[in-house]
Amino acid sequence: MTASSATPDSQATGSVGFVETQYLELPDPVRLDCGRELHPVRVAYETYGTLSAQRDNVILVCHALSGNAHAAGLSTAATEQGTRDGFGAEDRDGADGKALGWWDGMIGPGKAFDTDRFFIVSTNLLGGCGGTTGPSSIDPVTERPYGSDFPVVTVADMVRTQRAALHELGIHQLAAVAGGSLGGMQAFEWAITYPDQVGAVISIASTHALSPQGMAWNAIARESIMRDADWQGGDYYGSGRAPDAGMGVARMVGHITYLSAPGLAERFGRRLQSADELSYTITEPEFQIESYLRHQADAFVRRFDANTYLFTSRALTYFDLAQSHGDGSLGRALEGIGARTLLIAFSSDWLYPPSGSEQIERALQAAGKPVEFHVIDAPYGHDCFLLEEARQTPIIQRFLKG
Amino acid sequence: MTASSATPDSQATGSVGFVETQYLELPDPVRLDCGRELHPVRVAYETYGTLSAQRDNVILVCHALSGNAHAAGLSTAATEQGTRDGFGAEDRDGADGKALGWWDGMIGPGKAFDTDRFFIVSTNLLGGCGGTTGPSSIDPVTERPYGSDFPVVTVADMVRTQRAALHELGIHQLAAVAGGSLGGMQAFEWAITYPDQVGAVISIASTHALSPQGMAWNAIARESIMRDADWQGGDYYGSGRAPDAGMGVARMVGHITYLSAPGLAERFGRRLQSADELSYTITEPEFQIESYLRHQADAFVRRFDANTYLFTSRALTYFDLAQSHGDGSLGRALEGIGARTLLIAFSSDWLYPPSGSEQIERALQAAGKPVEFHVIDAPYGHDCFLLEEARQTPIIQRFLKG
Repeated sequence: MTASSATPDSQATGSVGFVETQYLELPDPVRLDCGRELHPVRVAYETYGTLSAQRDNVILVCHALSGNAHAAGLSTAATEQGTRDGFGAEDRDGADGKALGWWDGMIGPGKAFDTDRFFIVSTNLLGGCGGTTGPSSIDPVTERPYGSDFPVVTVADMVRTQRAALHELGIHQLAAVAGGSLGGMQAFEWAITYPDQVGAVISIASTHALSPQGMAWNAIARESIMRDADWQGGDYYGSGRAPDAGMGVARMVGHITYLSAPGLAERFGRRLQSADELSYTITEPEFQIESYLRHQADAFVRRFDANTYLFTSRALTYFDLAQSHGDGSLGRALEGIGARTLLIAFSSDWLYPPSGSEQIERALQAAGKPVEFHVIDAPYGHDCFLLEEARQTPIIQRFLKG
Repeated sequence: MTASSATPDSQATGSVGFVETQYLELPDPVRLDCGRELHPVRVAYETYGTLSAQRDNVILVCHALSGNAHAAGLSTAATEQGTRDGFGAEDRDGADGKALGWWDGMIGPGKAFDTDRFFIVSTNLLGGCGGTTGPSSIDPVTERPYGSDFPVVTVADMVRTQRAALHELGIHQLAAVAGGSLGGMQAFEWAITYPDQVGAVISIASTHALSPQGMAWNAIARESIMRDADWQGGDYYGSGRAPDAGMGVARMVGHITYLSAPGLAERFGRRLQSADELSYTITEPEFQIESYLRHQADAFVRRFDANTYLFTSRALTYFDLAQSHGDGSLGRALEGIGARTLLIAFSSDWLYPPSGSEQIERALQAAGKPVEFHVIDAPYGHDCFLLEEARQTPIIQRFLKG
């Protein structure tokens, strides 16, 4: 492990410009861990940069709980999809209401994932609500949205779907798989399951298995959605009602876990919402932090599907490399990995604390695998992976040159 | 500050035995910070030990967010009231379904608050649901429960009510005011507002003002209740419906903030609820931590009123000694205090972290006031104040002898 003191390269960087999400249909059913098969499966994706003639410059970028395929540039379908996980759910609008991708600071010419050199592919996850088949998609059998009948998916199922989609694009080798949070989980799942296809793993603010406290926060968020009467057991599509109230609370819980206590103190303190006097109210926000939470909840329910939240939260709670690949041993799970690994964690991230990455580092070292681990000292909690672009960039650039 | 390595005295301790909650009516209206007056006000209380002839051996014990007057002994009305805050919401049942008080380990013959020496008074807070006037009480004007018309109360209002109740009992001097969490806030409010009446403050796992992160957790809990359609704007009494779903989520959030991440890892880990295989379910608990959260939620909604939760959470969020008594300066707020102060905090308490008590210690020291501060190294988070009885006891006994 290295305490990072890297400074960003003073290099001109650019935008990938306007992008449009594309879609493809998988020809074969996707086999799922739960035993079911899903067919048809559509995958939403975006690409940035140019595929080399040798098809050897592909980096797959994987999104987190509430992300989508729109990772970089300005989307022309911004209002429909929204962007950015975590803090940034204050959707980053560009000019004309067009939304910036959730990792726009990291992907583009001269950026961490340099589109002058790499061909970046970003897909929306299986179970998603950003164009890939999910619980709001039409079940061909019933001709109605899946809703409660959508199968419970895992990170492995998501990765299997990504692989099938890349196959359709004629891509069979990945220079790297990269992602933060749930995205970092996918990167490891890729490297373990398909060791011959992955050259490098870049796992940021992630872990090999969520901590019990993290599992609890996810359970609470799901309970909040499912206890909302408007959830209707998951079959709310077309009913004119959706579990917005419960989803709002779920998002509030998420938000606070993505931020750090000192970060909240710095940004909001105990400042009142308006004037200097208390209003003595239960129902209205009195402090700025209270108003902020409501704003975040309201913005999120407008752009995200509650069932997708449930299924994705379930998948990241299930994720456990040692259990699924190593009979309980993390070392055994990582034995077959062929990729070089870069781990980045953030000092103030208490949802995916550095200790998770440290355990991966040790297991990889013990297995004699190449691994590099950086802890960036920054105050913004888990959201650092979206915010600390300048300090992640030189680390990732050096690693990708290696 | 002293890192505590105290060991419990090896002294025989006993129970206060069977107790019955008592009630008194205040003769005068209670003036509230919001400008309203409340009348009539009933106060539920229990006492343990014997009042001295000089009436100089009284300790007022103040409860936390979800407590009640039943602090010690076995209540004969257990099923109605329930007990204990935090972890211990697994209500401590004695023989025959009779419930132990929420601080039974601390109050009794030979215990921290020794009933052989002191006369302990414990009242249910203003706004409560354990017998003291609160939102579920009958408004004499409408002859229906207050509900949404109950005034927004503050910690100062709670203390004013306690003082009026003690007056009715013929008690005008307090050897000490003691409490954990919200109870510690009340202790300071007492000592600052009525400096001539309070000999000592014992503030445990508490603070002079909740942190922004703590404010956020409280706001999320309140949102969860208020967004439940069955809350009906607060007027759910007699409707046959109550916001149990939202209250359950509020309690889950509370629970996780009362415990520490290492404590959760130790107690639950990632253990499955049953068998060794995943069931691939969204709606059912899959891990032990998920089942535990549901159990805690269900137990809590059976024993606690949602509006009381809202009003009490609001009061503890408002609490800010520096703002209300010192024009923004904690030092100025504490200037007039006449009491000796004992502060206890717990290393793993991230909801009321030791730093809050440390700030109080420094401000008291700067003002030349007698203060003693102990940080107990223990893994159970905020709930330590209810669980770490053996290590608090010698500290409190020594302090009360001083």
